[in-house]
Amino acid sequence: MRPSNTLEIAEIGSFHVGGRRAGAPPHMVDPNGELEVEQMYAQYVKLDRPKARYPLLLVHGGGLTGVTYETKPDGQPGWQSYFLHAGHDVYVSDAVERGRASWARYPEIFKSEPFARTKQEAWELFRIGPPGNYPVRAAYPETQFPVEAFDQFAKQAVPRWATNDAATIAAYEAYFRKVGPCVVLAHSQGGNLVLTAGLRVPELIRGFVLVEISGAPDPVMTNLAVFGNVPHLFVWGDYIDDSRSWIQMADTVARYGEALRTVGGSVEWLDLPAVGITGNSHMIMMDRNSDAVAGLIQDWMGRHGLMR
Amino acid sequence: MRPSNTLEIAEIGSFHVGGRRAGAPPHMVDPNGELEVEQMYAQYVKLDRPKARYPLLLVHGGGLTGVTYETKPDGQPGWQSYFLHAGHDVYVSDAVERGRASWARYPEIFKSEPFARTKQEAWELFRIGPPGNYPVRAAYPETQFPVEAFDQFAKQAVPRWATNDAATIAAYEAYFRKVGPCVVLAHSQGGNLVLTAGLRVPELIRGFVLVEISGAPDPVMTNLAVFGNVPHLFVWGDYIDDSRSWIQMADTVARYGEALRTVGGSVEWLDLPAVGITGNSHMIMMDRNSDAVAGLIQDWMGRHGLMR
Repeated sequence: MRPSNTLEIAEIGSFHVGGRRAGAPPHMVDPNGELEVEQMYAQYVKLDRPKARYPLLLVHGGGLTGVTYETKPDGQPGWQSYFLHAGHDVYVSDAVERGRASWARYPEIFKSEPFARTKQEAWELFRIGPPGNYPVRAAYPETQFPVEAFDQFAKQAVPRWATNDAATIAAYEAYFRKVGPCVVLAHSQGGNLVLTAGLRVPELIRGFVLVEISGAPDPVMTNLAVFGNVPHLFVWGDYIDDSRSWIQMADTVARYGEALRTVGGSVEWLDLPAVGITGNSHMIMMDRNSDAVAGLIQDWMGRHGLMR
Repeated sequence: MRPSNTLEIAEIGSFHVGGRRAGAPPHMVDPNGELEVEQMYAQYVKLDRPKARYPLLLVHGGGLTGVTYETKPDGQPGWQSYFLHAGHDVYVSDAVERGRASWARYPEIFKSEPFARTKQEAWELFRIGPPGNYPVRAAYPETQFPVEAFDQFAKQAVPRWATNDAATIAAYEAYFRKVGPCVVLAHSQGGNLVLTAGLRVPELIRGFVLVEISGAPDPVMTNLAVFGNVPHLFVWGDYIDDSRSWIQMADTVARYGEALRTVGGSVEWLDLPAVGITGNSHMIMMDRNSDAVAGLIQDWMGRHGLMR
């Protein structure tokens, strides 16, 4: 007998999308000194018989790549695997400048210096332990993050730039146009980027799952009515109240959510501790209870007609 | 009825391996200013019922990533897909400094400036058209490379360094140790790197498929006897004789192959034009006839006891 977790898969593939031609320094005027820059990368796994109506696009956060959703740092299956088993065609992408999307020389093409997140910044910003705690690495006692795998997680980090947002949003728009109607699940920095890109092609977005997103479009400056038919699920982990940064970011996102509700949008705000699920870090998809949280997301997709 | 090309897959996953801790510039002495550097990345797809005895590790060449083996630039399935369908558990990796492996700031951690390959260099070095031909982009008339997809191919390029060979070889060794007994298929720059790493763990390498590799260990300086039981297949495309660089590189590789034969090793030298398969570029796995060449590699694996 075969194990019950066998996946019947029709296709595994990948592509780059978006980007532009650029002159290659130092010969900016040499017509042969050309590169392709500002593209992004996506890899997909398509099921033989998907149960979801639309492909599910998993979008990573800042300083990371699509690896966010693959095997977890502790070696357990991540959300790519979970949502494949749940019947979705799953796309995992690397944003402009990250991972397999490639990057371009600075300051000639990318206009600033990149920066790398240190382990201390990750430990604190991702709420593995209380602020200031990294030197002794005492995690929150109840944390769901696999603390023993923190250094393995740190190997996933990639440098980032602060000056590529416009190119990144353009590439996400190209990505949505290439894939067609889809559900987008985004994490952290990825949230504001895909919401902004999605506003340009709202007819292609059938749902947004926004996991601890760090920002959102300003509702005063945005015509949110185009998202009136796009259900939004916001997911938040634990220890937000310990972090001044996260209190502010969640407030910004809440204002976006409230404005969307005002124009008739479907908005669900899933505060995990409020429903009894405690100990989640910012990296919910890597936490030990990642399957349980994915299950709540899956239920939400079912309730919003996103499954066949 | 399901399409006959459905894959029954037990697991899709990925990992980073190798690397070291480094101080993060500019605070090299700050104990909290730490990064993980010099790791590599691998992604695997494991079949429910593989027909191959060992996992197949696909290793990319210079200035590129594991995307080399995924969907081809013309949108057709690449060798990752071919060898999955042929019954192998397939691992696709990104070397140190490339793609999802990440890279580190220079000159503080990586000790030199990176360089990016321009499209002209790629066109000529990869033998899409005759030397000097890029400005008019007239490909070899019989080329198997999908010339219309050349710009799409250029989006796969990533910057590279000339000073990371030792770290790259160390990471490949760690990779082989993590995976265990395996067959390694390497392209171009990847060849010398995996041969050198393999010499440290020859008992783990059950076969080498070396596709247009650009170098090989110096047989005078190397104890090749440890590879006496490791069959080697060398694969070469067309138009080598037009390129002074490739004539030299193939000569270097031939010296390695001859020395290996002298110590009793199994060496097969597959010169595709000599067996009537013409028009292949350096990027054989992206050429229109990539499946046909993969079929010859698959046959070789069968003849060398690498399939069940």
